[in-house]
Amino acid sequence: MRTVFWEDNKVKMIDQRLLPGTFVLAEFDTVEGIARSIREMYVRGAPAIGATAAFGMALAALRSQATDREGLLADLRAAKATLDAARPTAVNLSWATARLLTLAEQTQADVDALRQALLAEAQAVADEDVEINRRMGFHGAELIPDGANVLHHCNTGALAAVDFGTALGVIYACQEQGKRIHVWVDETRPRLQGARLTAWELMRAEVPMHLIADNAAGHLMRTGQVDVVIFGADRVAANGDVANKIGTYKLSVVAKENGIPVYAVVPTSTIDLNLPDGDHIPIEERGPEEVTHIGETVIAPENVPVYNPAFDVTPHRYITGIVTEEGVCYPPFTQSLRKAKEAAEARIAARRRQR
Amino acid sequence: MRTVFWEDNKVKMIDQRLLPGTFVLAEFDTVEGIARSIREMYVRGAPAIGATAAFGMALAALRSQATDREGLLADLRAAKATLDAARPTAVNLSWATARLLTLAEQTQADVDALRQALLAEAQAVADEDVEINRRMGFHGAELIPDGANVLHHCNTGALAAVDFGTALGVIYACQEQGKRIHVWVDETRPRLQGARLTAWELMRAEVPMHLIADNAAGHLMRTGQVDVVIFGADRVAANGDVANKIGTYKLSVVAKENGIPVYAVVPTSTIDLNLPDGDHIPIEERGPEEVTHIGETVIAPENVPVYNPAFDVTPHRYITGIVTEEGVCYPPFTQSLRKAKEAAEARIAARRRQR
Repeated sequence: MRTVFWEDNKVKMIDQRLLPGTFVLAEFDTVEGIARSIREMYVRGAPAIGATAAFGMALAALRSQATDREGLLADLRAAKATLDAARPTAVNLSWATARLLTLAEQTQADVDALRQALLAEAQAVADEDVEINRRMGFHGAELIPDGANVLHHCNTGALAAVDFGTALGVIYACQEQGKRIHVWVDETRPRLQGARLTAWELMRAEVPMHLIADNAAGHLMRTGQVDVVIFGADRVAANGDVANKIGTYKLSVVAKENGIPVYAVVPTSTIDLNLPDGDHIPIEERGPEEVTHIGETVIAPENVPVYNPAFDVTPHRYITGIVTEEGVCYPPFTQSLRKAKEAAEARIAARRRQR
Repeated sequence: MRTVFWEDNKVKMIDQRLLPGTFVLAEFDTVEGIARSIREMYVRGAPAIGATAAFGMALAALRSQATDREGLLADLRAAKATLDAARPTAVNLSWATARLLTLAEQTQADVDALRQALLAEAQAVADEDVEINRRMGFHGAELIPDGANVLHHCNTGALAAVDFGTALGVIYACQEQGKRIHVWVDETRPRLQGARLTAWELMRAEVPMHLIADNAAGHLMRTGQVDVVIFGADRVAANGDVANKIGTYKLSVVAKENGIPVYAVVPTSTIDLNLPDGDHIPIEERGPEEVTHIGETVIAPENVPVYNPAFDVTPHRYITGIVTEEGVCYPPFTQSLRKAKEAAEARIAARRRQR
């Protein structure tokens, strides 16, 4: 089953806020609803957000009252603005909405044909995501030795994408290859995506793992119990600086200090060549209740001041390689990332010509 | 009010497991009860554990049925074994029980006089702790510039000691000096001593602060928002390696990477000259429920495998200085720590002669 999909002219998705305790499918049939599903984190993970936003654009076309092409384009531009504003850090969101808007702008057709073309393109974004993830997974698996202890941050599995996942996709690829691996699962405070989602995915997939508090990762690295660190990303700048879930920077610095390789695993849609470096990536700050409350349990004094950045930037010098669907990019990243991005764009264009 | 104290022939203590929601005084009148209060973390923090264990030895003497000195000494040795086994990492525990047992062994007196002497010595351990903490606090305050942003891990305040605290004592000393400081409070997973206890203490003391997820500390350091990192310790080896709450190592590595000074603040009773380095310090592993449950809320799948080390070791090369009641120790720590330890022991001996 996919994390997000189109059915009966609605967008359906697993409500990830309730996992692992409760499994519920939520459905949305308006652009505002899709924006809310992203903002309130029914769906999270950069690739999954991208696919959801693509379906949101298809939904905007379907719901549009426009009777001519210009009217539809105006509605699509408004929908893109609404969707892009939902969360600031993951670039896959605006990458996907731009991909659909550009297609509409470049297609000379009537309103109904445009609606069909947009839905087909959104479906292609979702389908390609699964295919891309499998390619990434097997590129990444070549970096993981048999018997490795892999440390993983946040959730980057099937739930973070349409299916299979990015960094966890590497784990699943290792498993398909019959490699014996063991995963240390960072719980990933404050939203606990590791404890709630990654642990749930890996247990279902029967991958050997242990859940740890994020604080324990350093002790494991210093005492020789970690061979590789892997994670996804929400945006990669042109120089290879990586914005990812808060805590990634600390992990990467300590990994480098201990001579442990660090890989970010991302589709090329996460690479933003428009930003020269990570200091230009907007970092989302979220509400204090993510830190002070866990479910119904209050863990801090009432009215305590809280600072809650959702992401951090890891400078490229701490990153050993960036795994994409076009292969593994190594330093100098300014060159290797551009090459990967160009290869991916050529592939999308060729695919579109075939349709 | 003190965290732990002797009253009506009982040991009374704040039940820290219930803070900040509920304030309850627990009381114990047996050695087994005292051991349980330490093991189950009614009381925690290396200096507070030391004082509690000292009172436990006084309680053993009071409750002993022995009618002669040898019988009492045997009961004290058994009590020491019970208390020392309660938690493995904080050396203050065995330091305090050894201090009381040695006093009993070296004192030629009848059973009743020994009981009195042991209670007086336990009371001295508690009283000295407060005095030592104030001395440490003001030594440490000299290292903190006016206007500093201080990052603090775990709880090392009044609750971690008999009163005033170790690393938080430095904060309180800065406040008494009228320095304007701001504290970033690491929540300190898994037991959340920062969110539950340090935030509570600092808010009551009206020290400006923000609570953060431990994962956010790296982002703050990389973006120039941290001037000093301070914490306590549970055991310091002869070479300056520091065992402290899990996560301290990660924090210290990232601080050093960013040129931020790192200070451990410890009474000399936390320094263990018998251990050449940190790799000889026993690291306590605690139960999985500390990671999988927060209050009544379950945050991970049922039966998930968990690894939960309570402490880590920070090699001395990441530590800028170690603040003790005898002054600040700098590298080479093998020399400076020994000098501090000798000065403290001379002070205890002189104090005992005065009584």
